[in-house]
Amino acid sequence: MTAATLPLTGRARVVIERVRPEINGGRFPVKRTVGEEVVVEADIFADGHDQLRCLLRHRQAGMERWDEIAMAPLGNDRWRASFHVSSPGRHEYTVIGWVDRFLTWRHDVARRQDPADIIAALQVGAELVTAAANRADGSAAAELKSWAAQLGSTAAPDTRQAMAQSESLATLMAMHSERLFVAENERVLDVTVDIERARFSAWYELFPRSCRVGNESHGSFAGVIERLPDIAAMGFDVLYLPPIHPIGRGFRKGPNNTLSAGPDDPGSPWAIGAAEGGHRDIHPELGSAASFRELVGQARKLGMDVAMDIAFQCSPDHPYVKQHPEWFRHRPDGSIQYAENPPKKYQDIYPFDFESDDWQGLWNELRAVVDHWIGEGVRIFRVDNPHTKPFPFWEWLIGGVKAEHPEVIFLAEAFTRPKIMHRLAKLGFTQSYTYFTWRNTAQELTDYFTELALHDSREYFRPNLWPNTPDILPEFLQYSGRPGFLLRVALAATLGASYGIYGPAYELMEHEPLKPGGEEYLNSEKFQLRNWECDRPDSLRHYIARLNRVRRENPALQSDWNLSFHAIDNPLMLCYSKTAGDDTLVMVANLDPHHVQAGWVDLPLAQLGLPEDKPYQAHDLLSGAHFLWQGGRNFVSLDPQASPLHILRLRRRLRSEHDFDYFL
Amino acid sequence: MTAATLPLTGRARVVIERVRPEINGGRFPVKRTVGEEVVVEADIFADGHDQLRCLLRHRQAGMERWDEIAMAPLGNDRWRASFHVSSPGRHEYTVIGWVDRFLTWRHDVARRQDPADIIAALQVGAELVTAAANRADGSAAAELKSWAAQLGSTAAPDTRQAMAQSESLATLMAMHSERLFVAENERVLDVTVDIERARFSAWYELFPRSCRVGNESHGSFAGVIERLPDIAAMGFDVLYLPPIHPIGRGFRKGPNNTLSAGPDDPGSPWAIGAAEGGHRDIHPELGSAASFRELVGQARKLGMDVAMDIAFQCSPDHPYVKQHPEWFRHRPDGSIQYAENPPKKYQDIYPFDFESDDWQGLWNELRAVVDHWIGEGVRIFRVDNPHTKPFPFWEWLIGGVKAEHPEVIFLAEAFTRPKIMHRLAKLGFTQSYTYFTWRNTAQELTDYFTELALHDSREYFRPNLWPNTPDILPEFLQYSGRPGFLLRVALAATLGASYGIYGPAYELMEHEPLKPGGEEYLNSEKFQLRNWECDRPDSLRHYIARLNRVRRENPALQSDWNLSFHAIDNPLMLCYSKTAGDDTLVMVANLDPHHVQAGWVDLPLAQLGLPEDKPYQAHDLLSGAHFLWQGGRNFVSLDPQASPLHILRLRRRLRSEHDFDYFL
Repeated sequence: MTAATLPLTGRARVVIERVRPEINGGRFPVKRTVGEEVVVEADIFADGHDQLRCLLRHRQAGMERWDEIAMAPLGNDRWRASFHVSSPGRHEYTVIGWVDRFLTWRHDVARRQDPADIIAALQVGAELVTAAANRADGSAAAELKSWAAQLGSTAAPDTRQAMAQSESLATLMAMHSERLFVAENERVLDVTVDIERARFSAWYELFPRSCRVGNESHGSFAGVIERLPDIAAMGFDVLYLPPIHPIGRGFRKGPNNTLSAGPDDPGSPWAIGAAEGGHRDIHPELGSAASFRELVGQARKLGMDVAMDIAFQCSPDHPYVKQHPEWFRHRPDGSIQYAENPPKKYQDIYPFDFESDDWQGLWNELRAVVDHWIGEGVRIFRVDNPHTKPFPFWEWLIGGVKAEHPEVIFLAEAFTRPKIMHRLAKLGFTQSYTYFTWRNTAQELTDYFTELALHDSREYFRPNLWPNTPDILPEFLQYSGRPGFLLRVALAATLGASYGIYGPAYELMEHEPLKPGGEEYLNSEKFQLRNWECDRPDSLRHYIARLNRVRRENPALQSDWNLSFHAIDNPLMLCYSKTAGDDTLVMVANLDPHHVQAGWVDLPLAQLGLPEDKPYQAHDLLSGAHFLWQGGRNFVSLDPQASPLHILRLRRRLRSEHDFDYFL
Repeated sequence: MTAATLPLTGRARVVIERVRPEINGGRFPVKRTVGEEVVVEADIFADGHDQLRCLLRHRQAGMERWDEIAMAPLGNDRWRASFHVSSPGRHEYTVIGWVDRFLTWRHDVARRQDPADIIAALQVGAELVTAAANRADGSAAAELKSWAAQLGSTAAPDTRQAMAQSESLATLMAMHSERLFVAENERVLDVTVDIERARFSAWYELFPRSCRVGNESHGSFAGVIERLPDIAAMGFDVLYLPPIHPIGRGFRKGPNNTLSAGPDDPGSPWAIGAAEGGHRDIHPELGSAASFRELVGQARKLGMDVAMDIAFQCSPDHPYVKQHPEWFRHRPDGSIQYAENPPKKYQDIYPFDFESDDWQGLWNELRAVVDHWIGEGVRIFRVDNPHTKPFPFWEWLIGGVKAEHPEVIFLAEAFTRPKIMHRLAKLGFTQSYTYFTWRNTAQELTDYFTELALHDSREYFRPNLWPNTPDILPEFLQYSGRPGFLLRVALAATLGASYGIYGPAYELMEHEPLKPGGEEYLNSEKFQLRNWECDRPDSLRHYIARLNRVRRENPALQSDWNLSFHAIDNPLMLCYSKTAGDDTLVMVANLDPHHVQAGWVDLPLAQLGLPEDKPYQAHDLLSGAHFLWQGGRNFVSLDPQASPLHILRLRRRLRSEHDFDYFL
C-alpha cells in the first residue's frame, strides 16, 4: 500500500468555483469596450463556519501588480465585485480567497456570552491585531498597536467586546490581513478591451467603382471622397469598401453573375489578384496607394473609419498562384482546384489550401497583408467568409494583430451555422454578422434579440445588424416597399448598437431580385458598375440621418445588453426598451408594411423608473410627436407609410400644478 | 514588429466544444456504477463544408489503448456516442475528430453532375482508396485495392459514381482512415465507476449498544448478530453503525444531552477516544476486533455490508491529544480548543486543526484509520460532518482509498449549504445525504427531486434519502402518527434508489421530541441505551419489508435518473413514475397523514409505453389490489391509515376477447 502524494496546498481551505464571466472555462477572453464594467461573480466557500475574505484581482496584461477589490457576499455562497477597464488591450482577472482569522474572530467574539470566554477571546484578538501591527508601517502600525492594547487591556469585557466590531479596526485589519493558505481560481481569465467603436458603430458599405467623378466611366477613391460629406451627414461612422485590389481576368464573371464577361465588364472585386498585383495592391482604376491614404485621412476628419475587406482567396491570375503554387490544392491533372460546392463551381476563385505543407508560410503572408493595411491607416477589417478558413488561423492572426494594435476591429462575415459563428466570435472577432437579416416576425425578433442581449454569449458575441448586403436582398425587402425599408433600418438601428447598410442600394430602396425566390440583386454591383442617383427625392437618407442622430444623442442606443421586450396586444407589432442611466427609450414598431396597426403596450413602469400614479411624457424622437401617458398600459397606432417605428423618450418628471409651492 | 508564434497544430481544423458529461470543465469525474452507460455528446465542427469523422475514446485508467466508438451527428453540429463501464475504478473518455478526406470525397462525388468532373473525382477517390490499402494488411488491403481498381477503371462514370457510396467501402475506409490533423478535446475526462450498491442500497442504522444479548446491561456486536436475520428480513443491505470506538469520559454528556453524566451514563459515541484507545479501537463493552469481524462476516452472509462511521474528532481523553497535541488548536491559556459555534460549546469534542503545521502527519494518520477498517472488512463508510474538514483532505483521502479499493463507498453526512454538499459530492463522496428529510409538500418534493433526477448535478451527486436520523426527528414525524411514518419511508424508498432509516426508532414510530419545536429525540440513543421492543405488533417492519422487496424485484426503483412527475388534480397528492425497460411503476401518494385524499391523475401514456385506446392493468405492489385503467386520466383514492402510497405496476398488455384467434 502506498500513500497517495499529498497536495502542496492542503491547507488552502477555500474553494472557488463557477466564476462568471468565463468562456469555455477560461479558454477565451470576454469582451468589453473602454470604460465598461466587468461584473465578476463566483461561488466561494470553505469548510466549517469560518469567515472568508474574497478579492477580485485585475490588471492590464503584462503588468506585474494586481489591483484588488473586496468581493461582497450575495447569499448562497455567491460573491460579487466589479472593475472598469480604461484602456484598449488585454486585461486579466481572477479571484482569490482565504479563511480570514480576524474576521472569524470578529464574528465569533460578538456571539460569546460567558465573560471568561469573552476575556479569553479578547486575548486572542489582541494577538491577531498585534501581528497585523507588526506587518504594517507608519501610522497604520501605530493605530493597530493602539487597538491591540485596548483589546488586551483591563477595561470592562463588554466594552472591549463591542470594540471588536469597530469598522475602523476592520478596515485597518483588511489592509494588513494575514493571507494564510490563499486559494486562487484555477485559471486567470482574460478580457479583450476594444475601442468604443467596437460596441457602437453605424456602417455604410459602398462600391468605390460606382463613385464616379464627373463623367468618368469608372469610379475611384476620388469619387468616394466626394461622397464623404453625404455619408457623414447620414451619421455613419464606418465606411466599408468591398475589396479594392486588382481583379482577375481568368473566368471573370459578367453582369448578373454570368459566366462570360465582355471586355469592359469589371468582374467581381472578390476575385482578387491580377497582373497588377494582389492583396497588398490597389485596382489601378480606383486610384493609388496615395489616393487611398487620402481617402482614409479625409474620412477620419469627418469622424469615420474606412473599413477594408479581407477576402483571403485568389483569382487564377493572382501573383501567389505562380509564386506559391504549394498554397493551393491541385487536381489529378495538375491544375489548381477552384472553389466549388458541388454541383456549384466558382472557377474565378482559388481558395487557399490551409492544409498545405507550407501552411506556416501562408499564415505569415496573410498576416503581413493585414499588417500592410494597418500601415496604410486601416483599423477596421470586415472579413469575408471567415468560416471557410481554419479557426486556429484566425485566433492566431487576430490575437497577433491585436497584441500590437488593440484598437483594430475585425467584423466576421460568417453567415453560417450558429456554433461556427460563436466559435469565430470567441476566438477573437470583434463583431459578427447576425441572423437579423432574416428575422421578421415579433416572435423571431424577440427570441433572437433576447439571446443576443441576455444570454452568456453576449460576453463574446457582438452583433452587427445588416438589413441588406450586396449578396443579400432579403425577401421581405423585395415586397414591402418603402415602409419595409424604413422599418428594417429602424429596427437595425435601435435593436443593435452596431448596424450597417449596403448603400446607396438601401436608401434608394433597390428591391428587384435577380430571380424570383432568390436573394441576389438584379444588376448587382458585384458584377457591374452602377450609376446611383443619390439625391433622388424619395431617398431614405434623411430618415437614416435622423435615426443615426437619435443613436448618437441617446446612450440607451449605444449598448446591446440593456434591451427588454414588453407586451403589446397586437402580434404584428413589437415593443422594446433600452435604458442607460436617465435615458429611457421605448420603441414600438409596426412590423406590417402594408397596413396601419394599433395596440396597447404594457410597460413595467417600476423597471423603467417611472411613476405609477403620475402622467409621464413620451416624446417620439423620430416624428417629434409628444404623448402624455399614464400607467403601464397605453395605446399606440403606427402608419407604416409615415414611420413604422416610434422611438419614445420617456420623461419621468412632468410639472403640474401640484409642483407649485403653495400645494406643499 | 514580431510575428506571433504559430501554433503547432495549426492544421487541426476540427473544433471540439461543450463535451457532456463534464464537471467543472473536467476537474472532477462523473459517476457511474458497473454496467451503466456513459452517453457522451459534443459540439464538433470544422471550417468549410468538409465531412468529419468523430470518435469517442474510452479506457480503464492506466490502460494504454483506447477503445473507440464512432459518434453520430445529431444535427446542429452536435455529436453523440456512448459506452458501458464494466468494472469498478477510474475510467477515462475523450473525443477526437478530424476532417476525413474520404468522407468528404464520398459526399462531394455524389453531387457532381459534369461527366468530366465525375471522372476527375473518381481518380482522386481511387488514390485515396489506394493509400488506405497501403495502410491495411491482409484481406482488407486486397479488398481496398480491388475497390481502388474499380473506381479508377474505365467503367461508365455513373456506375463508378454509385460505387463510391458503397457502405462496405465506407466501413473498410473507416477502419483504415488516414487520421490527418486530428483534434482532441482539451482534457481527458474521468468516470468513477462504483459497485452497484453505490447506486441502489437500503440502509439501516442502529446503535449496537442497545442490542443486548439476554439480560446484559450493555449491547454488543453479539447482540447485533442476533438481530441480523430480522434486519435482512426487512430487506436492508447496509447495516450502518454509529462510532464503535472507546468513548471519552471528560465532559461526557448525560441523557438528553445534559452536561453532567452519571457514572453509568454511556456518553455519545461521537466523543471518540479514551484510555482504551482511539479511532482504530473498539469500545470494550461492544466486543473485540474479532467479534467485529464476526459481525461483518455474518452480515455479508446475509448479503449485507456493515457501514462504519468515520467521525474525525476526538474526546479530551483520546490518545491523540497527548501524542499529537500539535494536531489541535490551543487557547491562550494553553488548553486545547474544544468545538464551539458561539454561543454553543461542545466541551466533549476536540476538532482537529487542519491548519496545523503537521497537517501532513494528521492526513496520513487519518488515512491509516480508514485503511485499518478496510483491512477489517469494511467497505462502506458514512462520514460524519465532512463539511467541517477541508475539501482538499477529502479529495486526497477518497481518491487514494478508491485508487486501491475501487469498491469502497463513502456517504457524506453533510447537512449544510447546497454548494458545499455539491463540492463534497464532486470531489469524491459516493453518496450524499439530502434535504429530503425536510421536503414534505408536493411542490417541494417535485422541485427537489426534479433537480436530483434531471439536472447536470446528477452526474456526481447520488442522493441517499433519510426520513430520520439519530440527530433528526423531523417535525412532520412528530405529529403525523403512523400514516406519517408509512408515508415518509415509502416516499424515500420509491423516490430514491438509495435510502435509509434510523431504527428501531423508525419502525417503532418513536416521535417524542426533546423540546417542542426542536428536532432532537427525547431520550435519544446518542446519550443513553434504549430497550427497543422490536417485535411490537404495531411495528412497521412488515411494511418496510414489503417496500424493500418491491424495490429488489423492480429495476425501475433501482435508479435515480428515471423519475418523472405527473399531474394530479389534488395538491395534497403526488404522482410520479419510474421506468426501466419493461418495468413501469406509477407511484401515487397521499401527502396528508390525517385524511383520505382522492384525485385524478394524468399519465402521459405514450411516454410510458401504454396504449391510448385499450385498457391496461395497474397492480398495487404494496396492497396487492388490481385496477383496470384506460386512457391517461384515472381516479385514485388513498386512505393514509391503510397505506398512503400506491406502487402501481402498469401492464401494457391485457388479454381480452379481441385477442382470440377467431377475431382476427
